[in-house]
Amino acid sequence: MKFRAGIIGVSGYTGLELIKILLNHPNFEISYLAASSASKTDEIFPLLDGILDMDIEVADPKIVAKKCDIVFLALPHEKSMYFTKELLSFKDVKVVDLSADYRLSLELYEKNYTAHIDKDGLKQAVYGLVELNKEKIKTARIVANPGCYPIASLLAIAPFINFIDTKFGVIIDAKSGVSGAGKSLKTTSHFCSVNENINAYNPFKHRHADEIKERIEMLLNSQISLHFIPHLVPITRGMLVSVYVNLKQDIDEKEILREFYKNAPFIRVKNEPVVVKNVVGTHFCDIFAQKHENLLFINSAIDNLLKGASSQAIANANLMFGFDESLGLPKIAYGL
Amino acid sequence: MKFRAGIIGVSGYTGLELIKILLNHPNFEISYLAASSASKTDEIFPLLDGILDMDIEVADPKIVAKKCDIVFLALPHEKSMYFTKELLSFKDVKVVDLSADYRLSLELYEKNYTAHIDKDGLKQAVYGLVELNKEKIKTARIVANPGCYPIASLLAIAPFINFIDTKFGVIIDAKSGVSGAGKSLKTTSHFCSVNENINAYNPFKHRHADEIKERIEMLLNSQISLHFIPHLVPITRGMLVSVYVNLKQDIDEKEILREFYKNAPFIRVKNEPVVVKNVVGTHFCDIFAQKHENLLFINSAIDNLLKGASSQAIANANLMFGFDESLGLPKIAYGL
Amino acid sequence: MKFRAGIIGVSGYTGLELIKILLNHPNFEISYLAASSASKTDEIFPLLDGILDMDIEVADPKIVAKKCDIVFLALPHEKSMYFTKELLSFKDVKVVDLSADYRLSLELYEKNYTAHIDKDGLKQAVYGLVELNKEKIKTARIVANPGCYPIASLLAIAPFINFIDTKFGVIIDAKSGVSGAGKSLKTTSHFCSVNENINAYNPFKHRHADEIKERIEMLLNSQISLHFIPHLVPITRGMLVSVYVNLKQDIDEKEILREFYKNAPFIRVKNEPVVVKNVVGTHFCDIFAQKHENLLFINSAIDNLLKGASSQAIANANLMFGFDESLGLPKIAYGL
Amino acid sequence: MKFRAGIIGVSGYTGLELIKILLNHPNFEISYLAASSASKTDEIFPLLDGILDMDIEVADPKIVAKKCDIVFLALPHEKSMYFTKELLSFKDVKVVDLSADYRLSLELYEKNYTAHIDKDGLKQAVYGLVELNKEKIKTARIVANPGCYPIASLLAIAPFINFIDTKFGVIIDAKSGVSGAGKSLKTTSHFCSVNENINAYNPFKHRHADEIKERIEMLLNSQISLHFIPHLVPITRGMLVSVYVNLKQDIDEKEILREFYKNAPFIRVKNEPVVVKNVVGTHFCDIFAQKHENLLFINSAIDNLLKGASSQAIANANLMFGFDESLGLPKIAYGL
Repeated sequence: MKFRAGIIGVSGYTGLELIKILLNHPNFEISYLAASSASKTDEIFPLLDGILDMDIEVADPKIVAKKCDIVFLALPHEKSMYFTKELLSFKDVKVVDLSADYRLSLELYEKNYTAHIDKDGLKQAVYGLVELNKEKIKTARIVANPGCYPIASLLAIAPFINFIDTKFGVIIDAKSGVSGAGKSLKTTSHFCSVNENINAYNPFKHRHADEIKERIEMLLNSQISLHFIPHLVPITRGMLVSVYVNLKQDIDEKEILREFYKNAPFIRVKNEPVVVKNVVGTHFCDIFAQKHENLLFINSAIDNLLKGASSQAIANANLMFGFDESLGLPKIAYGL
Repeated sequence: MKFRAGIIGVSGYTGLELIKILLNHPNFEISYLAASSASKTDEIFPLLDGILDMDIEVADPKIVAKKCDIVFLALPHEKSMYFTKELLSFKDVKVVDLSADYRLSLELYEKNYTAHIDKDGLKQAVYGLVELNKEKIKTARIVANPGCYPIASLLAIAPFINFIDTKFGVIIDAKSGVSGAGKSLKTTSHFCSVNENINAYNPFKHRHADEIKERIEMLLNSQISLHFIPHLVPITRGMLVSVYVNLKQDIDEKEILREFYKNAPFIRVKNEPVVVKNVVGTHFCDIFAQKHENLLFINSAIDNLLKGASSQAIANANLMFGFDESLGLPKIAYGL
Repeated sequence: MKFRAGIIGVSGYTGLELIKILLNHPNFEISYLAASSASKTDEIFPLLDGILDMDIEVADPKIVAKKCDIVFLALPHEKSMYFTKELLSFKDVKVVDLSADYRLSLELYEKNYTAHIDKDGLKQAVYGLVELNKEKIKTARIVANPGCYPIASLLAIAPFINFIDTKFGVIIDAKSGVSGAGKSLKTTSHFCSVNENINAYNPFKHRHADEIKERIEMLLNSQISLHFIPHLVPITRGMLVSVYVNLKQDIDEKEILREFYKNAPFIRVKNEPVVVKNVVGTHFCDIFAQKHENLLFINSAIDNLLKGASSQAIANANLMFGFDESLGLPKIAYGL
Repeated sequence: MKFRAGIIGVSGYTGLELIKILLNHPNFEISYLAASSASKTDEIFPLLDGILDMDIEVADPKIVAKKCDIVFLALPHEKSMYFTKELLSFKDVKVVDLSADYRLSLELYEKNYTAHIDKDGLKQAVYGLVELNKEKIKTARIVANPGCYPIASLLAIAPFINFIDTKFGVIIDAKSGVSGAGKSLKTTSHFCSVNENINAYNPFKHRHADEIKERIEMLLNSQISLHFIPHLVPITRGMLVSVYVNLKQDIDEKEILREFYKNAPFIRVKNEPVVVKNVVGTHFCDIFAQKHENLLFINSAIDNLLKGASSQAIANANLMFGFDESLGLPKIAYGL
């Protein structure tokens, strides 16, 4: 018997990727799909023609709770918490929220977004970074799926947390594919703006910066300066993160990486700088580290829509139901 | 128990795609890999790191025949026949050849390529276009996997073969992604040549033209003029074919398509022009047809490396072993 | 002394290209810029920072007429005619209209667009295809700049007009870069939709089809079937047109091309299929022709925003002021 | 009267860009072209068809010296010095060398490349970074045109040289388009490798790192740690550099930039992160700086083939002949 999974806010990119994974998942089956207006899967996603033919409804929490054992919320920030709060009032249903609404401390959430209307839910929510928080996720009722930049950044930084010279802070120069900006129409997603172009945006001010900073400080148990510079690159999907930190002692950076992730099935420690096309289409995070004098360069690559969103959400769901973390997760990259 | 599959010439793009499909195939397992020089899978294909760790050998037909129930030959044209000939001398092993060496009549082969050194094999070989030749493939020992352009073109034309006004011939304006030119280094595959560019090449002279023409004439039982113009477009994979023919009578083109392919699990008849990104990553061929006065426009899209090569080869293998045609074939497109 | 040029509707792609050309033009200078809302050039076009610093006003025809000797109208279809009508009421000022409003006969305009409110202007307007209509353009007060598809198509077809077997009609398989769809935000211009994709759209129904058909029939002096299939390809700019016609007699297609265009400074007759990157950034139209049995394949390439719009408009203006057609037109392609 | 300019090693990308600029230059005319084998311009560069029709010869220094007032050497590293040495033996002819052969101190050259065979020339050579070395370039007989990464990096760093806290070194995270790797065929320039991909390469080991380090140390008059990480991004041309340094005091970073470059006609100080498409096609270097706590982020963008190579070379030539630095340099970006 399979558990019943619903997706709310299915019409965006992460919704589609959730569908793709769930279609091949041995223990979950799609039981409910909802978006802001009713339609059918093959109207919104022509590539599912012949694969999936389901109604997409306008979500009603009562019905959702009845039809689903687990619900993936792919709703916009600041909207998701309203839906989640109501959903959590029904017993039994588990929630993985892909928005930012349950990722941050109350203080940072309200600084970056708006007043939080579900403080109880926020307290219960477990940060769903599988490699770093597995035990808590297993017993969580609501998991906050991390942001894509935080996932790639934290997986790079965590193994080295004890070796960072905090005087210098942490610099993250991150590059994201265009799908990270979502399906909605923006000048910065217009083909003629993006193609043959590259640029930084929101230096030091991106809302993922505080998410990364807060998590590093929890790992470190002290404060740190975080300098986060995201860039837009002309690829559909994929994310490359370069972290620069000063070391307070000499280390064997390759050995530390290997040891830290020896039991992590979806982290590949590499001997050469990581290559985005080797992870796009998969749940892998490839990581490479190299020191140069006192500086440590840590380099990670993920598929922003999978490891950075939808397959991460499924990995969380696997753990919440007591399954193997790896169940049904994509492993083979699209690349040539 | 799974049947043992070998891939000879595995280092190119079609070799990689064969590996990807076989890794998820319920009834075949990879038992042998060979290329022109020995190495290991994750050296040649870094994206298989953590997925597959196998030696790549220099092929020896004797060993191949011992270790494999089926062999996929991804060798260059004019080389494949030497290997095939030797392989066929060992009983039992079945062969799907992805080169051009067994696709054409002797006459056309020798006109387009070179003297054929395996005329017996050529006589036995069955043309592996699954939708049009299923019964013969089931009992074949050697199947000639068609060219990518011929697959997309013939699937478009076949349903309408009886309605074509042959006085005007068949025009095919075809567009291929760069992977169609293979992994070897050529000026025409250099990023700076291809990107932001598009052009026709080899008008009327491409070697796939005679393959298409010969197959149309077999379906038609008479000669026809074929005008084949391939184009290179700046995408990694995917192929779009536009066929233009004059009709000798009025027809219901949508109904004819649907009827012709009603039992074909990997043909999707569309109501709008086909979109390459909806098939890339899959074994689907999407087809659309629309008449305008006497002209019929037929429009098909495939993934040139899958339906146009590697998944086609697996579909052929499925039939040769009595399995369902669909077994293990990719259905979910990469697209967003 | 330079003549004063204004651009109305400057905020789009063709407006920017007009500015770029006029900045280097020996005989025109930009005297007036207008768009739907007031701003400054370097706000809308950051790449003009340090190059041009001019106010963009909300257009007032009275002021336009006072400040300009020639006005380029880059307004939307169905809006342009209102502005043009008023502008023509002021004596002296010349107009090149880049919209569709003055390109078609009244009948076809009203079939494809809406009721025409400037029938007098429409009668006066000269079709601004420089290579085919030079004498009339020289004395025109208002020139209708042709559509991009019509320019590339008509330049391909015109030399062969007397050799076409009209029973078969004319097939045009055209491929356009994304800038052809303009700067406004559309799903079909979103990077993630366009990149790694290609598809036909509006088969037989694109509004440029009637423009091409009407002009071919004027050249031919009889009716013809036109089959026009446009495609979207993932390049920023550039257009490739493949025309297929049946010949009613044997011809020397290369010689005909060379002879027809022997005095055309911006037509390059090629011995190989044309390559888009060799014309992007220029006013050139490269053309190649090759017959195969009775079929003639004619292949042309232009920059859709230059030869297909803005440099065409300047070429028209050059002629309207008695200058050499070539004055100030871009000749050196961006390509590598 | 124009001065006569020759290009040796014209067949690559920088050769083509030199031709494009010289064709529009008011004071230089192309008098001589040479490559490793004889041919004609429009054979090698089809986009010059109708623009330039010149023989490309196999270079003979004696003839070069006779036919040229200035020679641009676009030869491979380690080859250029042989040619330069011979050329300098003829009096009068001036040289701009685009290779690495005259950029470094003898010690660093021999560490990174090979034994230098023209130590006299090396002593005479002036480092051709126009904004930082103008007076020396004016009287130079041989100018070493800097590397593309050093140009973008040094222009970013130089204004802040006195404010850098040298304890922490300088981090440069640089991103280059594919043309930076040249026209020769490499796996890393194959469309299917580059497209939809991004990766770092040669971290800390790129040969441009020592060029940057040496120049920073000359400006600083002391040693510094330089951490240089180049990346390959899927664009044809363009380069984005992100420099991270710690500040030893609080500064007004925007004001410092503006003041430093107040007389530099091709530096644009921006208020937002720089955008590659706004400089591609031009000689501009756009720079943006922003501090965050103690960290300073400096962000520069250039066209790697122009400001990073060929237009830089022409700017050097302008100064060497006493012309205005700006003469004939491209200002209008290709972007939309």
